[in-house]
Amino acid sequence: MNALNVSEYVQTLGVQARMASARMAKADAATKNKALRRLAELLRANVQALQADNAKDLERATAAGLAAPLVDRLKLTPKIIETVAQGCEQLAAMPELIGEISGLKQQPSGIRVGQMRVPLGVFGMIFESRPNVTIEAASLSIKSGNACILRGGSEAIESNKALARLVQRALVDSGLPADAVQLVQTTDREAIGQLIAMPEYVDVIIPRGGKGLIERISREAKMPVIKHLDGNCHVYVDDPCDIAMAVKVADNAKTNKYSPCNASEGLLVARGVAADFLPKIGAIFAAKGVEMRCDPEAKAILAQSVRPVQALLQDATEQDWSEEYLAPIISIKVVDGVDEAIAHINRYSSHHTDAILTRDHMHAQRFLREVDSASVMVNASTRFADGFEYGLGAEIGISTDKFHARGPVGLEGLTSLKWVVLGDGEIRSS
Amino acid sequence: MNALNVSEYVQTLGVQARMASARMAKADAATKNKALRRLAELLRANVQALQADNAKDLERATAAGLAAPLVDRLKLTPKIIETVAQGCEQLAAMPELIGEISGLKQQPSGIRVGQMRVPLGVFGMIFESRPNVTIEAASLSIKSGNACILRGGSEAIESNKALARLVQRALVDSGLPADAVQLVQTTDREAIGQLIAMPEYVDVIIPRGGKGLIERISREAKMPVIKHLDGNCHVYVDDPCDIAMAVKVADNAKTNKYSPCNASEGLLVARGVAADFLPKIGAIFAAKGVEMRCDPEAKAILAQSVRPVQALLQDATEQDWSEEYLAPIISIKVVDGVDEAIAHINRYSSHHTDAILTRDHMHAQRFLREVDSASVMVNASTRFADGFEYGLGAEIGISTDKFHARGPVGLEGLTSLKWVVLGDGEIRSS
Repeated sequence: MNALNVSEYVQTLGVQARMASARMAKADAATKNKALRRLAELLRANVQALQADNAKDLERATAAGLAAPLVDRLKLTPKIIETVAQGCEQLAAMPELIGEISGLKQQPSGIRVGQMRVPLGVFGMIFESRPNVTIEAASLSIKSGNACILRGGSEAIESNKALARLVQRALVDSGLPADAVQLVQTTDREAIGQLIAMPEYVDVIIPRGGKGLIERISREAKMPVIKHLDGNCHVYVDDPCDIAMAVKVADNAKTNKYSPCNASEGLLVARGVAADFLPKIGAIFAAKGVEMRCDPEAKAILAQSVRPVQALLQDATEQDWSEEYLAPIISIKVVDGVDEAIAHINRYSSHHTDAILTRDHMHAQRFLREVDSASVMVNASTRFADGFEYGLGAEIGISTDKFHARGPVGLEGLTSLKWVVLGDGEIRSS
Repeated sequence: MNALNVSEYVQTLGVQARMASARMAKADAATKNKALRRLAELLRANVQALQADNAKDLERATAAGLAAPLVDRLKLTPKIIETVAQGCEQLAAMPELIGEISGLKQQPSGIRVGQMRVPLGVFGMIFESRPNVTIEAASLSIKSGNACILRGGSEAIESNKALARLVQRALVDSGLPADAVQLVQTTDREAIGQLIAMPEYVDVIIPRGGKGLIERISREAKMPVIKHLDGNCHVYVDDPCDIAMAVKVADNAKTNKYSPCNASEGLLVARGVAADFLPKIGAIFAAKGVEMRCDPEAKAILAQSVRPVQALLQDATEQDWSEEYLAPIISIKVVDGVDEAIAHINRYSSHHTDAILTRDHMHAQRFLREVDSASVMVNASTRFADGFEYGLGAEIGISTDKFHARGPVGLEGLTSLKWVVLGDGEIRSS
């Protein structure tokens, strides 16, 4: 396809998605759940065929010299296929949210006014690498009554095509339109440019991938974007706090996993507990090979306890306070107390997830209210910031914006509320 | 000011608004309500001074040859001032919504997860003509804990300046930052360009005015926009229906007022009731001088009853089905029934407000579910689509989008939900 053809092709997908979205919006719960269970069935029945298509992507990736961890992320193992199949069944078992009317109240004029939950319409999702995202996005789209256009990474195109065929079969077998879930079948990058330029067919774009991709899409998209940028998360160890608990949670927030966006990158410690707390967490970080970039006060305290691995103790620069390392590195700073901690976090954090570890109720309340982040936590690890851990059942992404949806986005984030007015012939007088 | 200075000036407003927004976000209910009641007091105490400033705008407008209805819209009468003062007091009496935590539920890990309502931060509002909008926007901003930057019409600049001074005095008298509500003091249009180009200081833009202005802002703004475009609203008269009620409601929806966006512009009539209903409504429209643009079937039926004013009976063109007249003109079409009505509305309506008048419960349910509009109504006049009539207490605007807020936008539309996690030292295991 040349650029013109790609553009026309993606527009055709848009027209088809818009038409399918009207049918999806009025589909009843039983039909949508049937499609999800049928999809689970088809995934399990086609493990071998899916692996054969996946093998083509893996061979091409290996031949192209892709690094081993990246090739790994492309793999559709029987275990991964079973997990996404179970995810479809879990969604099918969740309560229906479309069509629900809430808050119906009688007004002085006599009319009753409430709000009905409805799908957004059509969402476009742009993602990289892991092909199982195709099934996650498709199943969330079906359950929420939307239509979607999926644009996966070129390195996973054969796997994605195979998965999308199963999704469309499940839709048709259940009496739903195949076009409710469409995969962009070309790897031409022009397709992304067209997808984000047609607000008449696509209501919202959800990009998942590197920061560069997301920034470009946010800048250029003609429709709203549910986007996730940085996760520069903090743990603040307050005075007073349970030191043993603080050590356990601060350790988990940093070292449970280094790469997720909800891993903590900054550690703030109240002066009153620093001499007690820092040596204990420092010993753990040193043992795990975590580099500590410290302000002078924290460094002086830590110098004692981490002497055996002195190289892990470094001076923090101004840049460190804003950094999302996604690595065994953490910035550490001693602060006066909760005021300075809140001010530091509101200045340097990426407004993703920040936690206070404290025994002081007033400090906890102030931290919850005043820290301007998508998730604010008291006495819990930042690693909990996740749709499944929050009980959303599934997650289409995490939003670092305040508009529409903030933090982990589940099915509700793919819906809107329309007003419903029930009258008995009322008219307006003035 | 030259363009460079205007740009720097508006950026300064942005920096100040961002700083003020942090203080507003943590202000308690009593302080915000005190500021609102103080503002009401100051408005009443300054009726004469406000009218003197308003007179400068009126004189300039008259001298510039502005049409009388437009000059009228500029007027700050004692009655209008009293109305906005009462609006401030009503807001002060409304329950506080900021800081409320909802849906706190224990998760399998042991953490409790809920959502806290928080302000969006800073909103920018661009509006024309009526200076009372300055007070409406300022008071909504104070109650919702946001900061705002207001850019009113150049024709009302003296009135807006006088009103903004009172707002800032009320804020300061109550211990809140004056910069929480800032008026752009220049009428240079460059100010709008700068206001919509600084997402680091302004979280959302709310334009109110002509369609051209709103389209331009939606296209160019670097942040989300809560926008209101067309109101091409429909009334569908179903078979079966209470004909007397249908006549009363269809009349009200069209002729109560012609200029509001929730006035009805299209009338669809089920074939089964057309011969009974159309002559009755036609006689009323004819008496009120409402031009009827009809499909052939409706025209044939109406030809009898409106013979005395034949000129009011015209043929509808394809263009008429999409038209927002805001005038004594209505398009009329006979349809097979509820299916064709829903299809017509979803194709031609501007997704603002559409009503079915019916006795059939199944038809009502289908209309509510399947019509893709911000407000869907059963047996009520489209003229009810309004924040006050819906019980929102106040209205910052009406959204024709699905993202974030749909339909009338009150205080809630100026807020977001952040996640709150309460733990007891929980850590994540995998």
